[in-house]
Amino acid sequence: MSKIDRRKFLKSTATGALGTVAAASALSAPALAQTMPELKWRLTSSFPKSLDTIHGASDVFAKAVAEMTDNRFQVQVFAPGELVPALQAADAVTAGTVEMCHTASYYYWGKDPTFAFGTAVPFGLNVRMQNAWMYEAGGMDLMNTFYAKYNIHGLPGGNTGAQMGGWYRKEINSPDDLKGLKMRIGGFGGAVLQKLGAVPQQISGGDIYPALEKGTIDATEWVGPYDDDKLGFYKVAKYYYYPGWWEGQAMLHFFINKTKWEELPKPYQAIVRSAAHTANTIMLARYDALNAGALKRLAVSGAQLVPFSEAVLDACFKASNEVFDEISGKNADFKKVYEAMKVQRADNYLWFQLAEYTSDTFMMIQQRKKLI
Amino acid sequence: MSKIDRRKFLKSTATGALGTVAAASALSAPALAQTMPELKWRLTSSFPKSLDTIHGASDVFAKAVAEMTDNRFQVQVFAPGELVPALQAADAVTAGTVEMCHTASYYYWGKDPTFAFGTAVPFGLNVRMQNAWMYEAGGMDLMNTFYAKYNIHGLPGGNTGAQMGGWYRKEINSPDDLKGLKMRIGGFGGAVLQKLGAVPQQISGGDIYPALEKGTIDATEWVGPYDDDKLGFYKVAKYYYYPGWWEGQAMLHFFINKTKWEELPKPYQAIVRSAAHTANTIMLARYDALNAGALKRLAVSGAQLVPFSEAVLDACFKASNEVFDEISGKNADFKKVYEAMKVQRADNYLWFQLAEYTSDTFMMIQQRKKLI
Repeated sequence: MSKIDRRKFLKSTATGALGTVAAASALSAPALAQTMPELKWRLTSSFPKSLDTIHGASDVFAKAVAEMTDNRFQVQVFAPGELVPALQAADAVTAGTVEMCHTASYYYWGKDPTFAFGTAVPFGLNVRMQNAWMYEAGGMDLMNTFYAKYNIHGLPGGNTGAQMGGWYRKEINSPDDLKGLKMRIGGFGGAVLQKLGAVPQQISGGDIYPALEKGTIDATEWVGPYDDDKLGFYKVAKYYYYPGWWEGQAMLHFFINKTKWEELPKPYQAIVRSAAHTANTIMLARYDALNAGALKRLAVSGAQLVPFSEAVLDACFKASNEVFDEISGKNADFKKVYEAMKVQRADNYLWFQLAEYTSDTFMMIQQRKKLI
Repeated sequence: MSKIDRRKFLKSTATGALGTVAAASALSAPALAQTMPELKWRLTSSFPKSLDTIHGASDVFAKAVAEMTDNRFQVQVFAPGELVPALQAADAVTAGTVEMCHTASYYYWGKDPTFAFGTAVPFGLNVRMQNAWMYEAGGMDLMNTFYAKYNIHGLPGGNTGAQMGGWYRKEINSPDDLKGLKMRIGGFGGAVLQKLGAVPQQISGGDIYPALEKGTIDATEWVGPYDDDKLGFYKVAKYYYYPGWWEGQAMLHFFINKTKWEELPKPYQAIVRSAAHTANTIMLARYDALNAGALKRLAVSGAQLVPFSEAVLDACFKASNEVFDEISGKNADFKKVYEAMKVQRADNYLWFQLAEYTSDTFMMIQQRKKLI
């Protein structure tokens, strides 16, 4: 190639290349680069890997985000303690130390009891009602208006379903049996039980078994058959009561630093929202698929399955309403969300009595008759 | 600028531009163009826009896909009849006339009764159990192995929840009252009722009201309060029975042409999966948020809410089991999925009796006492 030819070639190639770049610019490549940039986020979970269904919701979320963006947007999941302690996950999000966390909103009930509505409140909603409220009846907007005070944007991210009432060394036959009961339970449920004379204790997961074994505590709540079975509580406290009236469902959340959320390109916001939906459904489906097997193992191991009497539940319900009213009297945010939840609850428990409840009841009768 | 300078400038710019293009090539632009191409799909829905919660699931899905891809992947939703009739949606997907549809798998029970398990079977699972089975206990894989025979890949895409048992011009007090009953009901439920002496009728949505008014039929099933209220059945058949034992839940599906599904770039597959999750949750949440209000309107309008007696349900349950067994005897696919569903059902109805059921029961008692 002569010098002249080389120049011509260079010239035409340059023009060609630049032309291509320009065309691509207008059409797609830079648009994509702007709206789908390479991004790495850190997510701190409040749940140890041993709680595999709950911790796993973060993995489901992160995997979905990575797959949907061809790995351009990666969310790295950290176990509690790797970056921040379990119960400081929300603070780390507020501060922007991490972009997001997976946590239970009610862990922060000490900052403001309004946080509780994001997860569970005593005698509140069941899973479907909580989803209906959050997604389609204004619940999520109400909570996000509140979370904004902490520079947090929240998205529902998993559910345990209705939890069990925990493990007890002695029977609870009447409300009187709650008096003096030293029980490992926190938050709202603990506040209600305290009203009834119980003594709520804060003990971290790994320390519960020895405390129960030694009799330092009389009872503990945990989650449900699948998680409880792993910790072996039935060996030291055989009465396994239900329901966990303080958690008729327990919704987990992805908390995202609000500034980071607002900076996200719209497609990534949509991807994060949708991945959270996936995690919300999958976590519950896992519990629902796993609990029955664990329940059978526990029954074989000698766990005594006992329902709380209506008298005990009545006393707890009344005490809960007192706590709701007391807090509502001094916290406007709490009152506003509580009033909204009550409307949802009354309406939903009216409707669910018909087709859902009678259908389930008939099938449970067949189950007891061993006909299914 | 001298000629030499111009040449130097061109040369360096050219190199620079080419270098940039090359770098971009390797890193992102062409990769994105390959994995996130511009794409337009057509989705035919089996549901008219008047069924706004069900039809709306397609809109939720299409909107999520568009938002997640910055409009690069667009799914256009067509109402029944715009491209193909409502009940030919799956055929159109099999043939590749459209890339996908939103439909009820059990509409195709006439082709093969195995299709029914994707939506609902008499005395089957409730919503949570169906989700658990589909997503986390092998149900979706089983169904997709079956759907593959029709070149279909299915993804759950919405749920109505437990349906009502429909509208009746006269009371149904015993199984004998089902004899000779001309009822608008199709599929599996119709086959069971036929066994009990009823005469199932196939009538399209718009023709039900006049048929019921004239007495051409004695009863009809539809969905639940929210959809039933719109059609005004209470004016011509005031007994509103529950539960709709043939639909303890009713799951909708997105059916995708399997060849088109497999050709989709992996990120788009992940986006479609996640958007379907969103639609699945949102459709149910909408029904759960809307049904109570409609139920109250119906009660005020004079609808008589009546539970089927245990004797009626027992008779229907026995007849259902006979139909299940008859079909299982001659259809291996059906038998395989039925056996899997039965395991899920027995396990789930064992576990759901404890925390879920007692928690709901207590709250329903409070609702009836007007304490919530």
